[in-house]
Amino acid sequence: MSYKKFDEADLAVIKDIINDPERVLYKDQINEEYSHDELSGTSSYPDVVVKAVSAEEISQIMKYAYNNNIPVTPRGAGTGLVGSSVAMEHGIMIDSSLMNHILELDEENLTVTVEPGVLLMELASYVEDHDFFYPPDPGEKSATIGGNISTNAGGMRAVKYGVTRDYVRGLEVVLPNGKIVEFGGKVVKNSSGYSLKDLMIGSEGTLGFITKAILKLLPLPKKAISLLIPFPTLKQAIDTVPLIIQSKVIPTAIEFMQREVIIDAEEYLGKKFPDSQSDAYLLLKFDGNSTEEIEAAYDKVAKLCLEQGAIDVLISDTEEREESIWKARGAFLEAIKGSTTYMDEVDMVVPRNRVNEMVEYLHNLHTEVDIRIKTFGHAGDGNLHSYILRDDLSQEEFERRMELAMEKIYQKAKELGGQVSGEHGIGFAKKPYLKESLDEDNLALMAGIKKAFDPKNILNPHKVFQP
Amino acid sequence: MSYKKFDEADLAVIKDIINDPERVLYKDQINEEYSHDELSGTSSYPDVVVKAVSAEEISQIMKYAYNNNIPVTPRGAGTGLVGSSVAMEHGIMIDSSLMNHILELDEENLTVTVEPGVLLMELASYVEDHDFFYPPDPGEKSATIGGNISTNAGGMRAVKYGVTRDYVRGLEVVLPNGKIVEFGGKVVKNSSGYSLKDLMIGSEGTLGFITKAILKLLPLPKKAISLLIPFPTLKQAIDTVPLIIQSKVIPTAIEFMQREVIIDAEEYLGKKFPDSQSDAYLLLKFDGNSTEEIEAAYDKVAKLCLEQGAIDVLISDTEEREESIWKARGAFLEAIKGSTTYMDEVDMVVPRNRVNEMVEYLHNLHTEVDIRIKTFGHAGDGNLHSYILRDDLSQEEFERRMELAMEKIYQKAKELGGQVSGEHGIGFAKKPYLKESLDEDNLALMAGIKKAFDPKNILNPHKVFQP
Repeated sequence: MSYKKFDEADLAVIKDIINDPERVLYKDQINEEYSHDELSGTSSYPDVVVKAVSAEEISQIMKYAYNNNIPVTPRGAGTGLVGSSVAMEHGIMIDSSLMNHILELDEENLTVTVEPGVLLMELASYVEDHDFFYPPDPGEKSATIGGNISTNAGGMRAVKYGVTRDYVRGLEVVLPNGKIVEFGGKVVKNSSGYSLKDLMIGSEGTLGFITKAILKLLPLPKKAISLLIPFPTLKQAIDTVPLIIQSKVIPTAIEFMQREVIIDAEEYLGKKFPDSQSDAYLLLKFDGNSTEEIEAAYDKVAKLCLEQGAIDVLISDTEEREESIWKARGAFLEAIKGSTTYMDEVDMVVPRNRVNEMVEYLHNLHTEVDIRIKTFGHAGDGNLHSYILRDDLSQEEFERRMELAMEKIYQKAKELGGQVSGEHGIGFAKKPYLKESLDEDNLALMAGIKKAFDPKNILNPHKVFQP
Repeated sequence: MSYKKFDEADLAVIKDIINDPERVLYKDQINEEYSHDELSGTSSYPDVVVKAVSAEEISQIMKYAYNNNIPVTPRGAGTGLVGSSVAMEHGIMIDSSLMNHILELDEENLTVTVEPGVLLMELASYVEDHDFFYPPDPGEKSATIGGNISTNAGGMRAVKYGVTRDYVRGLEVVLPNGKIVEFGGKVVKNSSGYSLKDLMIGSEGTLGFITKAILKLLPLPKKAISLLIPFPTLKQAIDTVPLIIQSKVIPTAIEFMQREVIIDAEEYLGKKFPDSQSDAYLLLKFDGNSTEEIEAAYDKVAKLCLEQGAIDVLISDTEEREESIWKARGAFLEAIKGSTTYMDEVDMVVPRNRVNEMVEYLHNLHTEVDIRIKTFGHAGDGNLHSYILRDDLSQEEFERRMELAMEKIYQKAKELGGQVSGEHGIGFAKKPYLKESLDEDNLALMAGIKKAFDPKNILNPHKVFQP
């Protein structure tokens, strides 16, 4: 691949399209934040950052970039963990953060239409204020919806409600050649040709720039309750999860957490976790429309957990307690990050009855490779978040051990019928592991699809796979 | 496109691969049924029909076909309505009906793994026997699951539970070049490259041959109840639907039906419909785990319907009544077919608050084009099934009027923010309408994708769009 180097002449054209000097940042005006995402392992500066406000602006910029062979990198809130929004080939970065308007709440069709830069927390609170519910609930609430769609983010409530894909009805997209197209719409069913909408979801900004999304809503459940359940061992806790699923009760969320991560969260938040009886917990949430319904469900699950050896079942029935538990859970990533000098992450997903094998494997790996690994995650959907910590290791030694650990983890995940990423995506950092995990044929198909959308490979090059 | 004409030498190779003469049908051995699907408008014979029993057999046949440029048409139960499973270029038809095994019920992961030839009714009753629930519920219960996935079939319960896509976790697929690949798996979340699984779903056998599917199950709801609600006019009935949605109760199904179609069903079934007060009905279903929960929901909806002018609310609380209502609903397609000499169908989907505009438009069109049109459908998800009847018209005159009517209907659907097909697919018959309905850019992307999967265009040519 050889791209045109972005220069002053290109800048003049961009400035002409945007017509607002404050929304075009060039060279020294570009904040360091734009050179990386939440985990700074992948780092590279764009030549120019454009804060677009409309699909039309993005269309014009893409058209210019396409005709002149200049790479373009889409950017939301930059909260990704795998480098998807880093400008590996420099060029133009299009930042969607000013496209943060909620355009329409359609109560008759149960949809909300948003611009891509709306933050997850803004969307969640807006729809809740109107007594609606947007179920996807990734830990990072300050991610943009555009970013959530680009990685098919999952979050805690996937056990009951599914993932972002399940809530995207339609998309407006600017293609790499600058054309503005629509995929899907407000319709509930669709069998009208290949689902280009579903192809866009999870494509990490490599096929097009999402400029508008029509999302499906649900009525807001009237009640929710959480259970915090200490177990003598993590193994017992996680072994209980398939039994919960088998009991035909579907909790909203099933998370597992370990003391060492809870301690990090306590330190990070400066606040005690509401229980200290054990080293291993399950955290469950139930929601629904009647107290009876929820009580029946959690009663059954509480009994089952006690039968499986749980030490206690703590019902979080006050708002204060509820908040303190979930706040701790929500702080895990930042808390672990704060507990070490540097870290990298693994976001593998395995069938939910294989979680324990994975957790045990990680535990042994810790010793085998001699590197600290902290894990928490979505026990109910098989998606684990493991963080490999540098601590006092030299950069070189860390990289050696980290790569060895990752190699082994992804190999194990594959063996267990799992996949490289449950919700964080592949981006730049996980490309080698996707390559090892998927068949050559699958990668060849992806490359063919990329070519159909972006024959010049100008949109977010070096991401997901090498075309 | 120019294909190799299938000859005796090819037959010998196929017979060698299959090694069971009873599973290879050639020329005169091919039943007339194989030349068309449920609506016989599209008609063409394959040269050979192969009743495959494994992915390996299909792989070998595809490889041979690919290397020798012979077209291949996938076939399930042949219950489609748009010609997707008709061998337009003759060649090899691969019939999946012997691949009808349920391979695994995994209670810990809430999945069932099936071969593509399992019939929907077989799957539904198998999982119910194990106290599980496979929610997609298209009217045609003798369709195969492979066919349901290939059209992303929706059915009645889409209002609450979504469509087939929402229940496919993983697929095993034979690619046009004969390679066997896996897309997705038993995992609940996945963000590991482009979702080839979602691309396969709804691609009508043009990208690969589905040889195995891992489907998501839910616990079986413990109770269900239906309401049959007569209204003075169809307009009043349908206008009530967005109000039901807005009331934040989510019924399992919301269907509308008209007297003229009910009469057809009565004649077809030889059985009276349980109510005759009106010309227009809403039929609603509610399900859940407690009587209280369901009662609260239907109470609210019943009151709302009466406020909107409903004549009555008939609660179907006996199994007999329940069966007689839904049996009538299930017989509509066959009943309408039996009431005329020939017909063609339209399966447009519009946002659910635009259904009334569509129904009124269809009513007026009836007069304008002077052709009988009967409509019923999924009021709750905006998917209408309209049948254009030939009656005593000459074939030529019927085709003229039918094409005129279709042209106008699809134009109107587009105007209302709708799509060409909600669940029946595009196949051969609806290609011209998809072409008019979608942007050129969308079609070009689809063609590019097809090329990535099937560069020789040997798999199910002439379907969905012209590459």
